Amino acid sequence: MNDSFNLDFDRTERLGFPEVVFGAGKTLEVLTEILQAYQAKGLNALATKVQPEKGKQLLNTFPNAFFEEVSGIFMLEQPQQNKKPGPQVAILSGGSSDAYVVNEAFHTLNFLGCGAKRFNDIGIAGIHRLLAKVEELKSFSVLIVVAGFEGALPTAVGGLLPQPIIAVPASVGYGVSAGGQVALNAMLSSCANGVSVVNIDNGYGAAMAALRIVKALTR
Amino acid sequence: MNDSFNLDFDRTERLGFPEVVFGAGKTLEVLTEILQAYQAKGLNALATKVQPEKGKQLLNTFPNAFFEEVSGIFMLEQPQQNKKPGPQVAILSGGSSDAYVVNEAFHTLNFLGCGAKRFNDIGIAGIHRLLAKVEELKSFSVLIVVAGFEGALPTAVGGLLPQPIIAVPASVGYGVSAGGQVALNAMLSSCANGVSVVNIDNGYGAAMAALRIVKALTR
Amino acid sequence: MNDSFNLDFDRTERLGFPEVVFGAGKTLEVLTEILQAYQAKGLNALATKVQPEKGKQLLNTFPNAFFEEVSGIFMLEQPQQNKKPGPQVAILSGGSSDAYVVNEAFHTLNFLGCGAKRFNDIGIAGIHRLLAKVEELKSFSVLIVVAGFEGALPTAVGGLLPQPIIAVPASVGYGVSAGGQVALNAMLSSCANGVSVVNIDNGYGAAMAALRIVKALTR
Amino acid sequence: MNDSFNLDFDRTERLGFPEVVFGAGKTLEVLTEILQAYQAKGLNALATKVQPEKGKQLLNTFPNAFFEEVSGIFMLEQPQQNKKPGPQVAILSGGSSDAYVVNEAFHTLNFLGCGAKRFNDIGIAGIHRLLAKVEELKSFSVLIVVAGFEGALPTAVGGLLPQPIIAVPASVGYGVSAGGQVALNAMLSSCANGVSVVNIDNGYGAAMAALRIVKALTR
Amino acid sequence: MNDSFNLDFDRTERLGFPEVVFGAGKTLEVLTEILQAYQAKGLNALATKVQPEKGKQLLNTFPNAFFEEVSGIFMLEQPQQNKKPGPQVAILSGGSSDAYVVNEAFHTLNFLGCGAKRFNDIGIAGIHRLLAKVEELKSFSVLIVVAGFEGALPTAVGGLLPQPIIAVPASVGYGVSAGGQVALNAMLSSCANGVSVVNIDNGYGAAMAALRIVKALTR
Amino acid sequence: MNDSFNLDFDRTERLGFPEVVFGAGKTLEVLTEILQAYQAKGLNALATKVQPEKGKQLLNTFPNAFFEEVSGIFMLEQPQQNKKPGPQVAILSGGSSDAYVVNEAFHTLNFLGCGAKRFNDIGIAGIHRLLAKVEELKSFSVLIVVAGFEGALPTAVGGLLPQPIIAVPASVGYGVSAGGQVALNAMLSSCANGVSVVNIDNGYGAAMAALRIVKALTR
Amino acid sequence: MNDSFNLDFDRTERLGFPEVVFGAGKTLEVLTEILQAYQAKGLNALATKVQPEKGKQLLNTFPNAFFEEVSGIFMLEQPQQNKKPGPQVAILSGGSSDAYVVNEAFHTLNFLGCGAKRFNDIGIAGIHRLLAKVEELKSFSVLIVVAGFEGALPTAVGGLLPQPIIAVPASVGYGVSAGGQVALNAMLSSCANGVSVVNIDNGYGAAMAALRIVKALTR
Amino acid sequence: MNDSFNLDFDRTERLGFPEVVFGAGKTLEVLTEILQAYQAKGLNALATKVQPEKGKQLLNTFPNAFFEEVSGIFMLEQPQQNKKPGPQVAILSGGSSDAYVVNEAFHTLNFLGCGAKRFNDIGIAGIHRLLAKVEELKSFSVLIVVAGFEGALPTAVGGLLPQPIIAVPASVGYGVSAGGQVALNAMLSSCANGVSVVNIDNGYGAAMAALRIVKALTR
Repeated sequence: MNDSFNLDFDRTERLGFPEVVFGAGKTLEVLTEILQAYQAKGLNALATKVQPEKGKQLLNTFPNAFFEEVSGIFMLEQPQQNKKPGPQVAILSGGSSDAYVVNEAFHTLNFLGCGAKRFNDIGIAGIHRLLAKVEELKSFSVLIVVAGFEGALPTAVGGLLPQPIIAVPASVGYGVSAGGQVALNAMLSSCANGVSVVNIDNGYGAAMAALRIVKALTR
Repeated sequence: MNDSFNLDFDRTERLGFPEVVFGAGKTLEVLTEILQAYQAKGLNALATKVQPEKGKQLLNTFPNAFFEEVSGIFMLEQPQQNKKPGPQVAILSGGSSDAYVVNEAFHTLNFLGCGAKRFNDIGIAGIHRLLAKVEELKSFSVLIVVAGFEGALPTAVGGLLPQPIIAVPASVGYGVSAGGQVALNAMLSSCANGVSVVNIDNGYGAAMAALRIVKALTR
Repeated sequence: MNDSFNLDFDRTERLGFPEVVFGAGKTLEVLTEILQAYQAKGLNALATKVQPEKGKQLLNTFPNAFFEEVSGIFMLEQPQQNKKPGPQVAILSGGSSDAYVVNEAFHTLNFLGCGAKRFNDIGIAGIHRLLAKVEELKSFSVLIVVAGFEGALPTAVGGLLPQPIIAVPASVGYGVSAGGQVALNAMLSSCANGVSVVNIDNGYGAAMAALRIVKALTR
Repeated sequence: MNDSFNLDFDRTERLGFPEVVFGAGKTLEVLTEILQAYQAKGLNALATKVQPEKGKQLLNTFPNAFFEEVSGIFMLEQPQQNKKPGPQVAILSGGSSDAYVVNEAFHTLNFLGCGAKRFNDIGIAGIHRLLAKVEELKSFSVLIVVAGFEGALPTAVGGLLPQPIIAVPASVGYGVSAGGQVALNAMLSSCANGVSVVNIDNGYGAAMAALRIVKALTR
Repeated sequence: MNDSFNLDFDRTERLGFPEVVFGAGKTLEVLTEILQAYQAKGLNALATKVQPEKGKQLLNTFPNAFFEEVSGIFMLEQPQQNKKPGPQVAILSGGSSDAYVVNEAFHTLNFLGCGAKRFNDIGIAGIHRLLAKVEELKSFSVLIVVAGFEGALPTAVGGLLPQPIIAVPASVGYGVSAGGQVALNAMLSSCANGVSVVNIDNGYGAAMAALRIVKALTR
Repeated sequence: MNDSFNLDFDRTERLGFPEVVFGAGKTLEVLTEILQAYQAKGLNALATKVQPEKGKQLLNTFPNAFFEEVSGIFMLEQPQQNKKPGPQVAILSGGSSDAYVVNEAFHTLNFLGCGAKRFNDIGIAGIHRLLAKVEELKSFSVLIVVAGFEGALPTAVGGLLPQPIIAVPASVGYGVSAGGQVALNAMLSSCANGVSVVNIDNGYGAAMAALRIVKALTR
Repeated sequence: MNDSFNLDFDRTERLGFPEVVFGAGKTLEVLTEILQAYQAKGLNALATKVQPEKGKQLLNTFPNAFFEEVSGIFMLEQPQQNKKPGPQVAILSGGSSDAYVVNEAFHTLNFLGCGAKRFNDIGIAGIHRLLAKVEELKSFSVLIVVAGFEGALPTAVGGLLPQPIIAVPASVGYGVSAGGQVALNAMLSSCANGVSVVNIDNGYGAAMAALRIVKALTR
Repeated sequence: MNDSFNLDFDRTERLGFPEVVFGAGKTLEVLTEILQAYQAKGLNALATKVQPEKGKQLLNTFPNAFFEEVSGIFMLEQPQQNKKPGPQVAILSGGSSDAYVVNEAFHTLNFLGCGAKRFNDIGIAGIHRLLAKVEELKSFSVLIVVAGFEGALPTAVGGLLPQPIIAVPASVGYGVSAGGQVALNAMLSSCANGVSVVNIDNGYGAAMAALRIVKALTR
């Protein structure tokens, strides 16, 4: 193992959750070495925002690993299909174009052993779709709400439901909404009470913020 | 009359509505001369965005005029209280902080002889307030929708009602939403179909856009 | 049909016009499933901003469909060539580089059963080209005005004609005007009265805003 | 009571916390009427971001009320000094210039019946000040972290402690950091896991986000 | 004379025009000393963007000087009223709110001994006003064109007239056009050929650019 | 010839210079048709910002045409090598990375029959290189000054030479200077007197602005 | 002493220089308490960016203190007039409007016991003024270079002199250069080698960066 | 050698360090000619930001040269492996994604004959990693600190160590931190004393700034 990285294997002990690998900015060589270091310790590992070509090449080296192209999620082990015990997280989204963010949050929660369910395509341009889900949503402990374009969904959800809400802007749109900055700022400006926000496209960060709450609930 | 301005008295004939005076950037002296030019022709005149101090000084020169401090609207004649015939315009707003924009649109429509009604405080953080008005709103010909902060109200309205919708961002908010840019961009990004938008705080422009539609309906 | 989307088939009944599919952010698989869902109901469907490669692949699955590469418009059925009855919409543009936006608006109106005619290359650097069309333009019920670069065309049109005007900024330009933000802001700042604006490159949205007006005219 | 506002008295039943009044954008007259409406129902009320002059005038009308000029917090009743039961919230800040945000969060939590303690002046330019507080901080259920300038404090806290963290950027700084945008973006970009963020200067929103978590902990 | 400034008295010899004093950022004391240094050499001096209060105080020290509050122009000597010989400069503007910029250019040209004439209120929302002046404008050697809001006037002028055109954006507007950035960018994006631009509100710079051309014409 | 464009063949008569074709935003088909329309009238034509691939394909259709890949200039006829009579234009640049802008200006002037000479690599980080050229530069009638990065060259030139100066920002740089916005704003802010500016990378526009001056000098 | 601040009295031991008080964001009460805490330890103290009114009130409490209104510098003890031994720092500036930044750096260096000399009004629009100082400047160990507007001075200095250069953008200008962002970005983009930059108006930070170098030279 | 460039071979004599070639904006032909000009003089040369494809082609022409794809560094001669005498520079970075900037600084220092050592992966989300290196870092004369995302590392370093610190923002991140602007602004806003900053990704500039200090230390 070369000296170009410096892993924080003690983080789980310190914080209760492991370090995760930011895949976008690393070369294939560095990523491979890092993943091998985890494998050598007998640990699973999660890398985020792995570009398609790089993910496919990693699968050659780690043939038992899991890679989902839409979200760029790479895990050394296959996701577990069993229902997770404990508090559950709902992931809501405005439209099917947000799937890459929704799935990043979903797979991260799964990796961390936390139960989650996805509710797609309930944007406020057809508000009846959200109203129809309110009762079911009441049973979840944390709500992650993803939206692109004008990012209004978290405001509507925040006015209807009392749980902790983590809003995630998606870089879905064009013209002024390209890049997700409008959705981000709309979420930060929400007139609904107590909505907090993570970076654009940061499904992973939303999952980690949800996990901090879930850990508090089960402590 | 000096040569520092050049009024377009023929505009009504050409376009069907009169020139209006932008009050914010003109000195008291220039504004006074312009209004006197209208008065000399026996015409009513509308000035927008007149600052409080300037408006009060104008009232000294034109004691029968109308000036509303909140919206900065100044008219040579008092607004008419009678109900206007013809197609009606509804002006919706998210919160009572938006009153300065709502009133600019309302008084402009009144000046132009077009009927209008205000619906305040129906922002989407309490969506039931909007849902309760949907039936009444169906009878209006054009909807002007004003909102500050995250500017989500036009999207919700656009998903519920089929009329022409003119969205107006209000410079109400703080942090990222200060200045109204977030509301503007959210409205331009709206995933509701066919919402069109005017400049931040441009209640006057929304009224004129509504008037162009009302004129088409009565032609 | 999987559960990754949630179509709003009732929108026509509620609003008078159907849901339309945003093609840019969806994978080929999701787009195909959505279009098949429409096809299965015997409905025509419109997808916007479909990228060239994706559009060509869709034509393999839907060989009778219509796809125009310049505008990215995809329709399950061929556009109808017959003249549409009722109020007509004029689509004006500053230069032939704006064709992709002009055509998006044109095909959307055609899909919705609304008559439209295109007027290209009448930008204000040669104002005589616009002046020559004023008489003909008076017969249209709604004017959609597309421009890139400095986006001045809607202001000139708004000073000459009384109809409802929907301005569309095009992302045509370079340096400071790259991306269309200058044209957008110039249109929002227009000193012509009552011009309303849609998002950059949003020919589809302009068509829908025009349709809301046309529906009001024929109600 | 006039018709210029439309209070949401049922919000506590729906969401578990009351509506709060945004003080900055309302005239003295409107604020007075709203507060009287609460008083008439025998309810306490909280208004945020009330400017100094307006707050002092409100105290004339409501002589038993509480107004803190630094944070702009106005409450109809005096804050309760007794220690609140249940989960506690820690409010950390980088420097004493952040007090206006810290106090907005502190008084809001007090109003909502939630216990809170302030930890000032522990910015990372002297990291030993934060390290000295880590043990004490472990006993709190939620951490609100306020910082201006480069906004790095939440990242350092997030690497040391496992609880839910709500970061609040303060508009403290000059040059590029004036207005708080740098602190906001730094917090959104944090390489610490699971930090979520609210709008610039939004101490109130951070308190509400903390309350949503505290409610979940005590449900 | 103290050492806090370092005047460039040789500039006229080197470049053909004198140094001019930027008045906005200097204290009354420094401005007074600089003007006295010119006076001691028997030279006239021009200061730009002198704020109203500072200008009035300077008049106490220099009772024969000229100060115009609207433009902030201060000159040690009264402007000369006689018609200047040689090539003439036309200064066009969109509306009477632009007078502060128009006058800064006008007085600077007068100070430099160059003839100029003002054409106000010929914005393109009423294009006939500009068309009516085209013949008269053909006799001027250089055209300075001032506009706020959407800044479209230079484009229209550039399509009608062949002379050198210097465009000046004015910080007149509100919402997106506040500050003059939209007018600036629209002028830089102009699809009219060969329009060059100076900084927002820089009437002085436009006059100097015109002077460089006038000097070339008379060399 | 189809109806998708509307050429302004009379522009030379009206303004003294021909319409030029913006090549970047047009399809190969439209460009070909436009150039054929010029060819059919026996006219030369100039297209700017033609992308490499498109330019090469045009050469297949117009085998006697001129295409320079660096600047994207396409002309139906080969540039003339003879020295042009009349006032001469100097084109200065900060570094050899600016060649694409320098050449766009150079070829445009050649097309218009105006003499020009290039002075490369005289940026102010080695000010002696500029000082060495001052004497030679005095004989030119107009100075076009191109610079990327911090865009300081026009300020230094403006302090040394009295001619009309047209500054052109180049999109050469990285980090904050990527895209040319810094160079543009630095040029607009120049404390040298009377420097005027055109859009980023607009070598063509600088040539046209120079031509307007040259025409005035020879009228 | 209350608990609203937490001073870092050990910083001198750790870093070799004392903590300094950011004056702009603190109330008069907090500033007074902090200064009294220093006074109680028998230490001198430096506060930066103290607004005029607050500085004057502090002088009432600390009558022997030093306060300079232009720069906002407040020190408990009068600045020492004797020449400082060791490496000297030169502070260059483009114009006399930059004095507030120049003086902040100058007084900070004096407070820290480091010698400094000011060179005003040597902006590059008159490059001979800088060239005349090059020989004298060679004897200084560190160069601080302050400039507003287009911020080109550090580039010219960096091409002429080999010492460490710390560039400080000043918020002097109007239009696009208002606020100092253009000068900042121009300095960051400098094509001169090895110029480093501090925040806009941060004369204090430039002095501290110079001190870090001076300390290294004398270690 | 053609006339399209103008090398500054005397710079070493004037400033003590050679001119360096900016590789990104030059064509392969121009780069080749420039490098051959150095080779013909028997000099080594350094080119920065050479894109992968161009670098590989240059290796064909200069088979003994050094090219590192990650950083884009190209040198005519192989880097020297021997330890450099004199003051040493430490290069710290937050994560292994910053390697391209770290290496640009490292190879530039090597080229200039200055000793340097890299310290990777010590970002503040795991502050113990930095604390563990403090003792070793005390022996270095200058610290270059590279960070992407929220750019907080220089602040932490500045609070712990007294040497000159040059901060380099890296364009590593996504959402709001894409492009490196957040890291840049956070570094400029640092509440640590005397941190100076270079352009985004400017490892080369940081090395040159360090060299200016090292030269001062050995003079």
